[in-house]
Formats: sequence, C-alpha cells, structure tokens
Amino acid sequence: MVEIVVAPNAGFCFGVKRAVKLAEEASVKNKEGRVFTLGPIIHNPQEVGRLKDLGVFPLDREENLSEGDTVIIRSHGIPPEREEALRSKGLNVIDATCPYVKAVHEAICDLVKEGYFIVLIGEKNHPEVIGSLGYLKKCGGRGIVVEKLEDLEEAFKHERVGVVSQTTQSERFFKEVVGELALWVKELKVINTICNATSVRQEDVYKIAPQVDVMIVIGGKNSGNTRRLFSIAKSLNPRSYHIETADELDPSWFEGVKKVGVTAGASTPDWIISQVTGRIREICEKACSYSSSQ
Amino acid sequence: MVEIVVAPNAGFCFGVKRAVKLAEEASVKNKEGRVFTLGPIIHNPQEVGRLKDLGVFPLDREENLSEGDTVIIRSHGIPPEREEALRSKGLNVIDATCPYVKAVHEAICDLVKEGYFIVLIGEKNHPEVIGSLGYLKKCGGRGIVVEKLEDLEEAFKHERVGVVSQTTQSERFFKEVVGELALWVKELKVINTICNATSVRQEDVYKIAPQVDVMIVIGGKNSGNTRRLFSIAKSLNPRSYHIETADELDPSWFEGVKKVGVTAGASTPDWIISQVTGRIREICEKACSYSSSQ
Repeated sequence: MVEIVVAPNAGFCFGVKRAVKLAEEASVKNKEGRVFTLGPIIHNPQEVGRLKDLGVFPLDREENLSEGDTVIIRSHGIPPEREEALRSKGLNVIDATCPYVKAVHEAICDLVKEGYFIVLIGEKNHPEVIGSLGYLKKCGGRGIVVEKLEDLEEAFKHERVGVVSQTTQSERFFKEVVGELALWVKELKVINTICNATSVRQEDVYKIAPQVDVMIVIGGKNSGNTRRLFSIAKSLNPRSYHIETADELDPSWFEGVKKVGVTAGASTPDWIISQVTGRIREICEKACSYSSSQ
Repeated sequence: MVEIVVAPNAGFCFGVKRAVKLAEEASVKNKEGRVFTLGPIIHNPQEVGRLKDLGVFPLDREENLSEGDTVIIRSHGIPPEREEALRSKGLNVIDATCPYVKAVHEAICDLVKEGYFIVLIGEKNHPEVIGSLGYLKKCGGRGIVVEKLEDLEEAFKHERVGVVSQTTQSERFFKEVVGELALWVKELKVINTICNATSVRQEDVYKIAPQVDVMIVIGGKNSGNTRRLFSIAKSLNPRSYHIETADELDPSWFEGVKKVGVTAGASTPDWIISQVTGRIREICEKACSYSSSQ
C-alpha cells in the first residue's frame, strides 16, 4: 500500500473559510437579488464553480452592477476609495476582508501617524498589496512595496522606516529584508503581519517534502501562496508537482513510489484534497510497483 | 619592494580621539592634583603608557581616590549610579563617554518609556554594555543582553521588543538577531546604534585580507573590536596575525611575501601603526624573498 502524508495545515486558512461562509450566507439571504464577488473569491476555480451553483458570481465588469445588487469584498481586501465608490452606488457591500489583512491596514496607518516611511514587503501586483496601498494613501503616508532586495534602495534614503508585510509573505524573505533595513536606517519599527497559517503551511512542506518519494502541491496555478509552497517543495524534492485537480495526476509520476506527500494552498477546499488522495490510491493500486508487489 | 596596504579606516575612532584629548587637557589643567582614568582609557597599553608620562593614571583601587582628585570616565561610559557615587565623593568628574555610547543610553530610555522590553546586542561583560545596563535599570526598564542567538529565547516571550546595540557590534550578527526577532515578536523597534567607525573598519578587512599575502591586525589583545577584526581577517586569509606592537612581528611570517595588509583596532594610535609598517619594510628588505630578488 502506498503511504500518503497529508500536511496537517493544508488548505483553507481562517480568512478564506470566513469569506466562503459569508458568500454562502449572502446567497441564502439574497435569493431574489444578484450576488457578486469582486474577482474570484479564492484562487481556486473549482470552489468558485461550486459557489456559482449557489448563485454567487465573480464580477465581470463593474459597469454591470446596479443598485440593490450585493457585492462581496473578498479576503484580500480592496482600497478604501474603491469601497466608498461601491457604497455610493447604492450597492449592498459585504466586507469579507480577512481580519489579518485589516490588521495590515491598521498597522500601516499607525506607522504613518508616527511619521514612518512605509516598507510593505509583498508582491507589487497582488490584490492584497493593492488594497493595502490604498490605505497608505488614505492615511496620507508615503512608502514602497518591496518584492526583491534591490527594491529596498529607496527606503535607505529615509531615517525612520516602518515595516509591514503581505500576510502570505515568506518568512525567509521577510527576515532578510528586516535585517538589511536595520543596518541601513537609523530607526526601524516592524509590525509582523505575516499570517501564521502561511508559515505553518510552509513548515509542513519543509518537513514532509524531503522524506517522501513524490510531493504533490494542490492549488490554483495563479495562487501566489501555492506557487511558493511548490517552489519550496521543488527545492527539497525534484519529484514535486503542482496540480489544480485530481485529473492532472499522471500515473507515470508514481512508478516505484512508496510514500507520497500532499499539501494544498490556502484556497484549496478539503473536498479537492480528498479527491486527490483518493485518485493517488487508485493509481497506486494499479501502477506503483512497490504497492502492487506487496 | 614589498607593498603595504594600510586600511584607510585603521586605528582611533572619533570617541577614542576625543577621550584621549580630554585626558591630555585634564593633565595640563591639573598639574598640581592627581588625574585618574576609570580603567585604561583605551585598550592599548602603549598609549596608556604615553598618558602616564603626562600624569594621567588608570585608577587601581577606587578607595585610593580622595576629594579634589580628577577622574575621567572613559569612552565606554559607566552606569549612572557609579557616576553619582563618584560625584558625591567630591571628585572632579570628567565625562569622556563617547557621544555614540550616550546615544545608546538615550535610545534605551526612550524605548523603555514606550513600553518595550529591551534587547541589547553586545558582549555581556563589556564595560560599555555594563554602563548601558545601568541606564536600563535607572529608567526602570527590563531587558537582556544578547551575545549569541540562543540568548534571544527570553525575548520571544515579549510581544513588543526594542533593540539597541553595543556600538562596536558586528553588523552581521546584528542583522541576524534583528531578522530573527522580527519573525517571533509582534512589534519590533530597532535603533541602530552600531558606530559607523566599526563597520567601515570591518569592511576594509573584507576588502584587503583576501588580496594580500599576509594580513597584520594591530591592537590590544584584550580589545573586543580588534579581536573581531582579527577573526574576520583569519576567516579570509589564514596568514593573518594579531599583534600589539612592532616588536611582535616575526620575520618568518614574511618569507616569499609580496603584499602585506595592515589594519588596527579602534584604540591603536597612528604612531604604533607607523612603527609596524616601518618594521615590516625593514624585515622585507632582508628576508622577503621576492623583494630581495627584485
């Protein structure tokens, strides 16, 4: 029998679970009206599909909204000026911004009030970062997004720098940036806004990937946190694969395999993880040489 | 001819130059009275000897002081309660504490006022650190000295941590500690109190040691910043030697040598550096095979 190790912290984080629940509730409450999410509620096409069946649709074009429609702000959050614009149109706005992301917004404004130049460690085009930058602007602050060490140069010109992080940032890069900054600027204040869910999910991969024959990472191909899980897995185990659904599992990956590790990004629902482990067992009943010979 | 590369930032730093100047002035003003320094004014027995000739003596036993004596607080600083005790004895106290060290004392008290638990990165038994801990106590704060990463554990129990550094701390360790702390605590405020003189002196060694045949580090054997320069040199060039004076130069070190690097710790006066480079030239005129054959 093939042994499958599922990472204890695979899948949905607190913020995503909450956003999906709010979307489900909205669909129940608004049977008559239309319910939209501002972009896919999570980086997972399958779960987005399931919500569509419940009547919750990712918004295509903002012009299509009309008074009385319900719009759900997803867990990433949005810039405050965009939220105000939606409310002023008479829409029913449901804020499913993750409380940990709200904490980033608050930390930014607190640091701005204290006079710091802001360094937001994160991906420049990530919706969460775009939302957070909106709060930086609203609070009248100045700052930059740091995606790679070279981006830091602008920050070195400032004497007092305040640091926050995208909630799904890698701990290693965060540590590197903070250490470097501390050497260059006179005063540094750091609010660690990395969400614990991300780090424990990453720690699982550091533990599991080196001790399995094949490592499977499940999650949207466009999900940043899943891609990071996959890059960690790949660096520790060359036989690592990134899939979105069980259908993508290729039997040839499992030849001669005894032990398989499975993890999943923050936006992967449990039912998809179960489908994947089920499919691996099916494949291995037929093809994994060790399991078939035992 | 042997080529000698003297590090541009070798020797006395601003704080030491200032303390020596204050000691010289005190010796002139107090021709009649006695002038003492609280411990050797710098980690350099030769310079201490020169000051003795001017009438400035390192204090042996505090009991030997009597009213009207002049005492000089050296650049490392002392705990405030000790300074008060000296003043209350009717002594003429001259404070030669380095202004950069005073900045550490102020940073500690500012951070304590803001409610931070203090991490002082430095050597537990260094006089500067002992002085700074005195200010931590006076300001009613709590904190620890971190000399190695394991010392940090106590700090992880606190949500809000303020960091300062011994002025002569290595930048690499400082960066490591700050990065690690940022991951563990909720809020971190760092005042970078590393003195630039130390870092530029260290950077010189990183540049020079790998490109010379022999690297000479001059400075007191009991001087922390010199020992660190030597350990950096040794890691980059196994033919590195730590000496206090030109007399310790061993001709056998220079056999077949074309290029010699020279640096010196913060407490080494220029006249000692000149003696060393002069002696190296002397040795190489006789013994360095390349120079004698060219």
